[in-house]
Amino acid sequence: MEIDNPEVIAEVRAVFDRYEAAIAANDTAVLDACFWPDPRTVRFGVTEILYGIEAIRAFRASVRSYAPRIQKRVQITAFGRDFACTHLEYERVGTGLIGRETKIMARLPDHGWRVVSAHVSLLAGQDPGRTQKG
Amino acid sequence: MEIDNPEVIAEVRAVFDRYEAAIAANDTAVLDACFWPDPRTVRFGVTEILYGIEAIRAFRASVRSYAPRIQKRVQITAFGRDFACTHLEYERVGTGLIGRETKIMARLPDHGWRVVSAHVSLLAGQDPGRTQKG
Repeated sequence: MEIDNPEVIAEVRAVFDRYEAAIAANDTAVLDACFWPDPRTVRFGVTEILYGIEAIRAFRASVRSYAPRIQKRVQITAFGRDFACTHLEYERVGTGLIGRETKIMARLPDHGWRVVSAHVSLLAGQDPGRTQKG
Repeated sequence: MEIDNPEVIAEVRAVFDRYEAAIAANDTAVLDACFWPDPRTVRFGVTEILYGIEAIRAFRASVRSYAPRIQKRVQITAFGRDFACTHLEYERVGTGLIGRETKIMARLPDHGWRVVSAHVSLLAGQDPGRTQKG
């Protein structure tokens, strides 16, 4: 199993970047298109536990905007040609709060690269009062 | 790409169960053995951001015990023969607090099944006072 094939990393990075742009723009159509349309898709959000694409789509439709975030670190690892995990460490703009997002991506025969699982969380134990800026 | 091959699911479930037993027992040797020994391994914990197996091992060595947890829901999806993601929704015993753990597992030529990435978090916005039992 080849790890970190450069072409695979580039393909996955393109999906990652498209997703981040869609989060910033709250582009629901793109966000929906990034995820595997299947009942087994999972999204553990900061305040959500969502099983299945229908629950994820309903959540997307309910969001007015996502908290703006700045990327602190991105690490992507690719396993073979069809599987990768992406890791994002981010800061919520203006708060100093640190969050983390892991996405699992698979290249599926009928869909191409899709997020099959996502987990987003804020680091616990952060005091917004202590870390708030300005 | 076959999804959810029963043999693969069973193999991954065995690693998952071994890991959970090791968390309950704080069996550092088993926990270390479950993870991919590589600088690219990632563990986003409830209060930790750890890049690389050395940081993960140092964290394990520092833990006196893990908060006891009860499994609420487990969902495992396998992609092909060599890749899977496991999802655990759990409750911290005696607190009512809900946590989520995602693990990404790969069957690596030199190591067999290993966790290549883990993300653990408590659902945000839970009030321990409100949910505490007893």
